[in-house]
Amino acid sequence: MEAAKAAGFPAVVPPSLQTPAVLIDLEILRRNIDTLARAVSARGQRLRPHAKTHKILNIAAMQLAAGATGLTVATLGEAEVFADAGVDDLFIAYPLWVGEPMAPRLAALARRSRLRVGVDSCEGARNLAARLGDEAGLPGVMIELDSGHHRSGTEPQEAASVALAARETGLRVLGLFTFPGHSYGPGASAGAVDDESRVLQQGAASLRAAGFDELELSGGSTPTAYASEPGAATELRPGVYVFNDAQQLEMGHCDVGDIALTVAATVVSRRERPEGGGQVVLDAGSKILGGDRPSWASGFGRILGAPSAHVSALSEHHGTVDYPAGSRLPDYGEVLQVIPNHVCLVPNLVDVVTVVQRKGGSTERQAPYKIVEQWAVAARGQNS
Amino acid sequence: MEAAKAAGFPAVVPPSLQTPAVLIDLEILRRNIDTLARAVSARGQRLRPHAKTHKILNIAAMQLAAGATGLTVATLGEAEVFADAGVDDLFIAYPLWVGEPMAPRLAALARRSRLRVGVDSCEGARNLAARLGDEAGLPGVMIELDSGHHRSGTEPQEAASVALAARETGLRVLGLFTFPGHSYGPGASAGAVDDESRVLQQGAASLRAAGFDELELSGGSTPTAYASEPGAATELRPGVYVFNDAQQLEMGHCDVGDIALTVAATVVSRRERPEGGGQVVLDAGSKILGGDRPSWASGFGRILGAPSAHVSALSEHHGTVDYPAGSRLPDYGEVLQVIPNHVCLVPNLVDVVTVVQRKGGSTERQAPYKIVEQWAVAARGQNS
Repeated sequence: MEAAKAAGFPAVVPPSLQTPAVLIDLEILRRNIDTLARAVSARGQRLRPHAKTHKILNIAAMQLAAGATGLTVATLGEAEVFADAGVDDLFIAYPLWVGEPMAPRLAALARRSRLRVGVDSCEGARNLAARLGDEAGLPGVMIELDSGHHRSGTEPQEAASVALAARETGLRVLGLFTFPGHSYGPGASAGAVDDESRVLQQGAASLRAAGFDELELSGGSTPTAYASEPGAATELRPGVYVFNDAQQLEMGHCDVGDIALTVAATVVSRRERPEGGGQVVLDAGSKILGGDRPSWASGFGRILGAPSAHVSALSEHHGTVDYPAGSRLPDYGEVLQVIPNHVCLVPNLVDVVTVVQRKGGSTERQAPYKIVEQWAVAARGQNS
Repeated sequence: MEAAKAAGFPAVVPPSLQTPAVLIDLEILRRNIDTLARAVSARGQRLRPHAKTHKILNIAAMQLAAGATGLTVATLGEAEVFADAGVDDLFIAYPLWVGEPMAPRLAALARRSRLRVGVDSCEGARNLAARLGDEAGLPGVMIELDSGHHRSGTEPQEAASVALAARETGLRVLGLFTFPGHSYGPGASAGAVDDESRVLQQGAASLRAAGFDELELSGGSTPTAYASEPGAATELRPGVYVFNDAQQLEMGHCDVGDIALTVAATVVSRRERPEGGGQVVLDAGSKILGGDRPSWASGFGRILGAPSAHVSALSEHHGTVDYPAGSRLPDYGEVLQVIPNHVCLVPNLVDVVTVVQRKGGSTERQAPYKIVEQWAVAARGQNS
């Protein structure tokens, strides 16, 4: 830290912090949660944020306080964690295939909460009903549509046959959902917003013709949630927006001032170049940053306050950062803040996150932090 | 499972197993541990396996029983976990930068075990000594050399100056180490074996000229450990060899029968093509498989028993698997075994692994498993 001070870089992170550590800037987090909640509400849409991004009870509580109607989760295990904490309106936005060990857990959760789960096939709907038995143990179902991501989800013209198969087995069909994952990429979100809306409307028309009504039309993804329009969907399920990340930054969906989560990391090795710049190695690798790197990304992450630097390589515990010629290379022991590429992977890699605030209420990005508290990542590792 | 049986595919995994789950085949694990231990010993080298791969006490015990002289770890936190379990010879093969919170922990560990740590700069050596105080709290140091991976590590001709700086501060210089990470790639390991040996010998010559002797020359990586030669190094630090993975398979360093770790995953969605084959989606994504995909890999992982299938995409909880035309597409609910690309990421993503054995002692790959026990991933998440 002495080196950083000498070079005129304030010690933003308290020296008592053991790196690598996940930092959450409380003010930015609050602002992100409130800003999107207001935007979605102003469009007449409901917000059901995806909690797989944070997996943290405190953040879920902030989202619900800001008007979220419930939570979206990816797995039954995540749903159980949030239900245990008192969240009673949950959507497992995943085409669950219910096997022997999952059936009693799912039925128990359906009995104690308003639960909806995804299905994307007649087989999935029939299996769900057959495994779960009586009506009180049956969740409501949402039919998943493929809007262009080509992962799970049925075609909109087949949605009615899945809905009819579900109804035949006694399941309540609540609506349709889609995840426009093809919104991830520079310039891709406008097309994905259109696809999401079109596919939901096509699916809804097909379901209404088959006698289903009062349909929830649920869209997803942070890029499309920022850009959705009134009437395109009845609810939205963005996850990343609470923190934002290097992907959102590089796609132009947020500014660096909207980045609420960073990984504090220490310079452990360096190679200066005579012309300035060079390479440093940080003590943060893919086991805390996650290893996602889409082809269009500039690297494996960015460095807060050093827009010309790029994380050029990640090993498990090493992050290699390149600084261009003419730039100042950070010194040994200096603590940098890495903006991860895909923030959803990060809380899942730690047991706790460190919540920080700028000292003295400063909004200046380089003002020192004080540590406010530590939050447990309650749903970490809930893969099933 | 019924569908799998009907199609002539035995239910290898017990239906009571909740997927996704990390499976460890105990017989293959034992054989991998013993085979490499014998090969390394026959070359007159010592084996100090890298425990960051498994993070499991039971496996560390098997490695030590097979003749390992101690363990390698990546972080102080990992070292503490294994020391608490009674392992008293530990090498943190990482250029630690010791800050305020790390200093008392490191000194305490040095007092209660034979501890060596990495340094790759004069600054790092001086900082280490200055932070730790008295002699009993000082670990031995190993100077890290760059053998071509260009991550951390000094050039061999600069090793003597780092060693002299370390000795000046009172640190014991025990030797040199390198990680030939550029051994990862088809056809790359032969060159990396040469680089590893050459750089260790160059560094050793430079240290001997400066008055250092009885040097440990420590090489690393599973590809080079398979191919090392007598005299190239005094000890080796491979990690992956206990499990092997899709990367080792595609580089030609192991056979499919040497894969000890797989992720059991259920088919939750499918798209059959009229010409046969198509796409299935599994309930295992990057939050259990890890997202590593080197440019030369055929995908994000392989499927045991289906060599023509490829994991073409991974989201957090979805694994998309492509089956070529003419092949049988697995049915809904069928449980497949995914071979992860980079196995070191996988135990870190779960709290427990499920240890299995073939029923009736069969060595037939498609024989059903019985669950033997569950092992805790004791050092999961130890990033610092």
